[in-house]
Amino acid sequence: MALSRRPGPSTRTRVHEHVDGRVLQHEDRLATEEPLEIRCSWPGRPAYRVAVTMRTPGHDFELAAGFLLAEGTVTGQGHLHTVAYCTDQDLLPEQEHNVVTVTLRSAPRSVPAERYAGLSAASSACGVCGTQSIDDVLGLADVRPARETAPVVVPAGVLHALPARLREAQRVFATTGGLHAAGLFTADGEPLVVREDIGRHNAVDKVVGARLLAGAPTGVPVLAVSGRIGFEIVQKAVAAGVGVLAAVGAPSSLAVDLAQRAGLCTVGFLRPDRFVTYSAPERIGV
Amino acid sequence: MALSRRPGPSTRTRVHEHVDGRVLQHEDRLATEEPLEIRCSWPGRPAYRVAVTMRTPGHDFELAAGFLLAEGTVTGQGHLHTVAYCTDQDLLPEQEHNVVTVTLRSAPRSVPAERYAGLSAASSACGVCGTQSIDDVLGLADVRPARETAPVVVPAGVLHALPARLREAQRVFATTGGLHAAGLFTADGEPLVVREDIGRHNAVDKVVGARLLAGAPTGVPVLAVSGRIGFEIVQKAVAAGVGVLAAVGAPSSLAVDLAQRAGLCTVGFLRPDRFVTYSAPERIGV
Repeated sequence: MALSRRPGPSTRTRVHEHVDGRVLQHEDRLATEEPLEIRCSWPGRPAYRVAVTMRTPGHDFELAAGFLLAEGTVTGQGHLHTVAYCTDQDLLPEQEHNVVTVTLRSAPRSVPAERYAGLSAASSACGVCGTQSIDDVLGLADVRPARETAPVVVPAGVLHALPARLREAQRVFATTGGLHAAGLFTADGEPLVVREDIGRHNAVDKVVGARLLAGAPTGVPVLAVSGRIGFEIVQKAVAAGVGVLAAVGAPSSLAVDLAQRAGLCTVGFLRPDRFVTYSAPERIGV
Repeated sequence: MALSRRPGPSTRTRVHEHVDGRVLQHEDRLATEEPLEIRCSWPGRPAYRVAVTMRTPGHDFELAAGFLLAEGTVTGQGHLHTVAYCTDQDLLPEQEHNVVTVTLRSAPRSVPAERYAGLSAASSACGVCGTQSIDDVLGLADVRPARETAPVVVPAGVLHALPARLREAQRVFATTGGLHAAGLFTADGEPLVVREDIGRHNAVDKVVGARLLAGAPTGVPVLAVSGRIGFEIVQKAVAAGVGVLAAVGAPSSLAVDLAQRAGLCTVGFLRPDRFVTYSAPERIGV
């Protein structure tokens, strides 16, 4: 098998830069975006495609494991048998690192049949949809905080310092301007793991997956993200047993709604001198 | 049928704001995020779920039409029979505005069988995937500029002015801090349509769908977006016959790759005194 090219987190390109009316031609760096196909299998179930996500290459096993944890397919490290790049004969060498297969030791308790961003090949006639169906698709029917979430209180001063800590740990953003970061932190603000990706959701899957693959206990005091808090980010935080979800950007209405129901503390507009708490404010200490 | 609550673009909530060590409780506004289920049907085909997207309510018909145009399912205004909120008996009143059905006059030439963000309920054994499959999923096998794209040259000065014009047209962002904007502009920088949404992709679908529903000619000189340029934004721009895609943020490697192949001009880091061109630089004039 030929050694395949492994794409890096940034890619070189030639650009025309317009500055103050002048045009300069030079080399520049772009955040690499490549599809990652996530496959899953377990005893008696051949590998099937779970999703294809557009991601920045790197930490792909973490991304796949974290994605499946958030989906509820994987329940813990002990549930994982292997996580590996696919070695299909049909794959071109440059594609080999764009397919990851997660093999489970046993069948999952539940598999999302059809998710909201996805196209259903199967017909679902009009009459069978509606509230029930949308809630099912979003997983709203099954929202509860992870059992392993410890009661946690995070001092406000720790939160104020997180954006700087996240930036410190980001290496690619400075050169491409195109990456989001996510980091898991202790209640004292010590970083446990920080990852970056062109997709906000991928960055979260990677930090959660890193803890999962390392066999670390589930339940983490703080998840900090560089962007906004949408519904799906809250879903992933709840599945990972996060206590406080803090973001540089704003949360959405549905994100706050879900966080309130799950008892997750959400913090937005995180700055050195300011932040806003939208749910579970009792988790913020002085 | 009871008159149903129609969610607005922003939602009120109570927050705790931490400023300089003090904690203030007050009311705040969040960008509304709600699921929109897009259904499609045509003669002989009962309505089926195409996708559920998390969006900011408003201009939902445009979003559904623009989404299906980008997917290649809808080919033009004449292809549309009706676009309507679903009136299923099974829907609760508050859900009625979260389901839009697009009825076509005739069967589409092609329907994406399975898309990358989605879960396939059907099994696809390992051996049938790979390069071919990923390219199919991404639609890479079928990239070509829209036939209707007119050769267009946009003066650099017009581009420099676009971010301000986009912000002028944004009403909700100032109050919630959580929305992306997309706008279609003439080669002189005159706005044709501007929309905002919690999702970057939705904002693009809305402006493209607005032109489609209005029966405007396809092919638009400029699409400006407030965020980054990912692969999917380029896909949508190509499908809409855009000449220049300009963004306040950075493009990704795959976005630039696709734009170069399709002849779409991509511009990033758009500022009053600077921008960077990544593809088709001949479309920028002095």
